[in-house]
Amino acid sequence: MTDLPLTPRTRVRRLPHHQVTDRAALYDVLDGALAATLAIVRDGRPVALPVGIGRDGDDVLVHGSSGSDFFRRIAAGTPVCLTVTQLLGLKYARSLFDSSMRYRCAVVHGVASVVPAEEKEDALLVLSEHLMPGRSADVRPMTARELAATLVLRIPLSEASVKDNAGSLVEVDDDGEDRAVWAGELPLHVIAGDPVTSAQTVPGTAIPDSVRRAAARVAATGTA
Amino acid sequence: MTDLPLTPRTRVRRLPHHQVTDRAALYDVLDGALAATLAIVRDGRPVALPVGIGRDGDDVLVHGSSGSDFFRRIAAGTPVCLTVTQLLGLKYARSLFDSSMRYRCAVVHGVASVVPAEEKEDALLVLSEHLMPGRSADVRPMTARELAATLVLRIPLSEASVKDNAGSLVEVDDDGEDRAVWAGELPLHVIAGDPVTSAQTVPGTAIPDSVRRAAARVAATGTA
Repeated sequence: MTDLPLTPRTRVRRLPHHQVTDRAALYDVLDGALAATLAIVRDGRPVALPVGIGRDGDDVLVHGSSGSDFFRRIAAGTPVCLTVTQLLGLKYARSLFDSSMRYRCAVVHGVASVVPAEEKEDALLVLSEHLMPGRSADVRPMTARELAATLVLRIPLSEASVKDNAGSLVEVDDDGEDRAVWAGELPLHVIAGDPVTSAQTVPGTAIPDSVRRAAARVAATGTA
Repeated sequence: MTDLPLTPRTRVRRLPHHQVTDRAALYDVLDGALAATLAIVRDGRPVALPVGIGRDGDDVLVHGSSGSDFFRRIAAGTPVCLTVTQLLGLKYARSLFDSSMRYRCAVVHGVASVVPAEEKEDALLVLSEHLMPGRSADVRPMTARELAATLVLRIPLSEASVKDNAGSLVEVDDDGEDRAVWAGELPLHVIAGDPVTSAQTVPGTAIPDSVRRAAARVAATGTA
């Protein structure tokens, strides 16, 4: 796997020792997240909205309504910035200045391409498989009307950066830190609760394996 | 409390019935989140990075390095879009089309102002109190050098939108949904794990109440 290229947009400027240029790290951040924030420029101003994501090889897929002004602008070629943040904990140093959040984040810059009609269903199944693994087998196939109402966009992972501040806590005593103070990390994890059956589900219907599998994935990764 | 104003930038265009114009809902989303994505336009392209946040009345505070190009552009008046997303679950409908994530999000548009030197420490304590409640009392005060190295920015909450798709699941049978299929929601929560003591903490040092309080807040809200 090739390393992530360092470009003026992807070179981390602050705390550059937290930059990770291993492409596998990018895929790991993306695969461990269900949602991202997608930013564009609209009328000269930034607009950033949450979107579901699913990686397809060296691209990331997003989808939206064919009627959405936001997605139509992206389909028309306006550049995007896709940001995924995994908040993994809180780092308690012996000063507020050295304290921070424990996180991993990926920032992808690019121009999306529209997934053509004949590939749309497959692309939506890739997204669905990431967001709700196995669910497509539980429900009826997509209809032509639904496919027409959905815009699927492919963002290449060619210009991206990853930052991960895993390393150890700053414990340098540079300005009078009190050595008697506890320092450490409070880890944060995502967990899935018990599935809540809908009002109109036929009483007695078993919770499908697909839902249990989604819960297990959240439990295994601690992220969503 | 006044309602959030509807402007061309804040009027929700897709699924407008999910828009919430109650200002208290905005504060609730912000207060339940530790991090946001902050987007600007740089050289005509969108750039969006994760930041820690803390609400101070009718503003939201963010901070960064005085040397950061990103934060310096914001300090110089480039417009921002601040996006907070709380992923609360997965909604399993009887079609993929009607399935979705269960989320709340806030999108704030505005121009930040720089917190002046004489107010910086108080503003950083507001941020610190939100991110790590009580921690400032455990550690030494901030130093002049640390204050000088930090840029604190105040973003007014005057133009903001909130979207919340809490409502019940779509259960209309419009295109051949199989009524025998289970539908419902898989809730997602954030939890705090056990604190991990740093390598250089004096053996036997008790975990402070502040850290336990942060863990309790995560447990109470299920978000971070």
